[in-house]
Amino acid sequence: MFEFEITAKNNRARAGVFTTPHGDLLTPVFAPVGTQATVKTLTPEHLKDINASLVLSNTYHLYLRPGDELIRDMGGLHKFMQWGRPMLTDSGGFQVFSLAQTRKIDDDGVTFKSHIDGSTHRFTPEKSIAIQENLGADIIMAFDECSDPNNHAYSKLAMERTHRWAERSLKAQTRRDQALFGIIQGGIQADLRTESAKFIASLDTPGIAIGGLSVGETKQEMHDTLDVIEPHLPENKPRYLMGVGTPEDLINGVARGIDIFDCVLPTRLARHNAAFSPAGRLNLMNATFARDEHPIDETCDCYTCTTFTRAYLRHLIVAKELLAGTLISIHNLRSLTRLMEQIRVYIVDGTFEENSPLLLEQWKNNAGKKMGNSEWEVA
Amino acid sequence: MFEFEITAKNNRARAGVFTTPHGDLLTPVFAPVGTQATVKTLTPEHLKDINASLVLSNTYHLYLRPGDELIRDMGGLHKFMQWGRPMLTDSGGFQVFSLAQTRKIDDDGVTFKSHIDGSTHRFTPEKSIAIQENLGADIIMAFDECSDPNNHAYSKLAMERTHRWAERSLKAQTRRDQALFGIIQGGIQADLRTESAKFIASLDTPGIAIGGLSVGETKQEMHDTLDVIEPHLPENKPRYLMGVGTPEDLINGVARGIDIFDCVLPTRLARHNAAFSPAGRLNLMNATFARDEHPIDETCDCYTCTTFTRAYLRHLIVAKELLAGTLISIHNLRSLTRLMEQIRVYIVDGTFEENSPLLLEQWKNNAGKKMGNSEWEVA
Repeated sequence: MFEFEITAKNNRARAGVFTTPHGDLLTPVFAPVGTQATVKTLTPEHLKDINASLVLSNTYHLYLRPGDELIRDMGGLHKFMQWGRPMLTDSGGFQVFSLAQTRKIDDDGVTFKSHIDGSTHRFTPEKSIAIQENLGADIIMAFDECSDPNNHAYSKLAMERTHRWAERSLKAQTRRDQALFGIIQGGIQADLRTESAKFIASLDTPGIAIGGLSVGETKQEMHDTLDVIEPHLPENKPRYLMGVGTPEDLINGVARGIDIFDCVLPTRLARHNAAFSPAGRLNLMNATFARDEHPIDETCDCYTCTTFTRAYLRHLIVAKELLAGTLISIHNLRSLTRLMEQIRVYIVDGTFEENSPLLLEQWKNNAGKKMGNSEWEVA
Repeated sequence: MFEFEITAKNNRARAGVFTTPHGDLLTPVFAPVGTQATVKTLTPEHLKDINASLVLSNTYHLYLRPGDELIRDMGGLHKFMQWGRPMLTDSGGFQVFSLAQTRKIDDDGVTFKSHIDGSTHRFTPEKSIAIQENLGADIIMAFDECSDPNNHAYSKLAMERTHRWAERSLKAQTRRDQALFGIIQGGIQADLRTESAKFIASLDTPGIAIGGLSVGETKQEMHDTLDVIEPHLPENKPRYLMGVGTPEDLINGVARGIDIFDCVLPTRLARHNAAFSPAGRLNLMNATFARDEHPIDETCDCYTCTTFTRAYLRHLIVAKELLAGTLISIHNLRSLTRLMEQIRVYIVDGTFEENSPLLLEQWKNNAGKKMGNSEWEVA
């Protein structure tokens, strides 16, 4: 069911095809995040226009609202939100640790209070898999614990728990039409990441995820960690770097053998009136755009850039019109999708290594902006 | 430039074609309202899918933000908001009276404070026309004063001022590619409405608007007023009933010889989670829809109804996802557009009189709901 064929390689960068029940996924790929069964402010038609191929949705949020059993009864997540292409759900682990009001972790699972109404819930590996089976995404995740990356003792504990939970997740799986990925943890500790990579690889899951990055470590630490992990990963399985990232991260991640990425950044930036551009991050509310007749990005082929001026977008923002968020989301998501398409062409052509410094320069050094998460991230 | 051809009549109901610089307008027609150069939450592509043909935008709002001169410099309103079909702007009069913080009316014009920042501005007939010429809509309005419908003395005063302002508006017009409509006022006073209809008709403008209705009077009073006006209107000019209305109002208005309507109702309802349906107004947040696999309206051909279930829409609403407003707006606007298309077919077929009671029944009596503005309107 879940074949992964590598069609081209440039050093560690790979172009591949991952076969899923909802069609072939061309990698490397960036997945827009549809937290609550919707990529915020966009219709599935917009996503198709953007040429999005994989959409992520969040187990924690959908479990709480509207409930995974309701979505199952409505025919599953694909049908519910009318997305006919591949989907991925996370395990809920990261959200329990980052969003829930209070949480108590033990070896069996996590008890937490909903951020919506304070009600008490419990996730275990078995529960996470049961929820993800109800949701029915093509790619699902083992339940994991994300640690503080700088605390070795806690990272070790969380990693060991993640390994036992990965085994229990696999054992709990009953559907064969979902690819269950194990997740490597271990903070930024080389010894732990090596151990975790070896262990998760040994489980022989149809794909492997790398969790616990882009959570506060430096770019160098992220790259070093990916460099430590990569040699221990099986060649013939897709590798998913969870919750990453910026355009720079995508380029650097592909160069380190990553095939799948996701991040809320493009849509979150859009809701804060910020757009990706070759000149760096544009804050479209800026008065300098009031009479700017250019599109956000002259080189972009998205609906927003081929249709509207910066002046119009600024007007929508100043007038508090919600259409601004929709139009900038379209552009930001198309920007990353297009970057990945470009990267894939380079890999297939055998020119990725040669072109990636240029790509990095183009996406990094403009307007003197550092493009790390800390720069792009908004509250 | 602005020819109006009546292609069919059923008693007083008319099907026509109004020629504008941005294409032929088939009447009767319902115009979605794009107050701030956007029909809230929708792209122009959505509006084309809905088969919207005429879009209204508000002079008062655009004058204040982003400014009519900016829009002129960006190539005009059509280009600014990328709507290539006919557009209409109002005179700003109604908004000055209903939205501005304070206002002082004299025979020359109105001084008012902006509802946005309290700054002081002044509209005169000449200023309103200058703004509307900068915006560049196909159909523009003479500056008018909307009175309290129940106060005969004030209605008379406001009507007389409206007449003098209509003459000044006409005199101020310099562009010949915009159809300037005079506006009939006179509250719900038969004598005033008769006088106003005769006077405005005498100005020989390419179309005639009826203002000051749907502002608190009863349905019967609205119908009686339309009945008083109609005999005095020239046959060969389009008639525009401003700010009206509900599905019921459209059917009753067409029966009384009206060709053009506009109202914020469909999009405003959508933002409050309410949808038009053959079963009356649906509040889609209602828990009864949580597992409802039907579309809003089985008979509707809109994107929302052909794609999504009520259960999904309710989930979006409960999860506070903005996509809900977009999807319900699409449905509500398509519902009224489709109603007008149906009415036009009936008129052309010569069956409008025979079918209008059925249409009224279908749109009025469902779920025991009275569908007057007071029922549909939301704060």
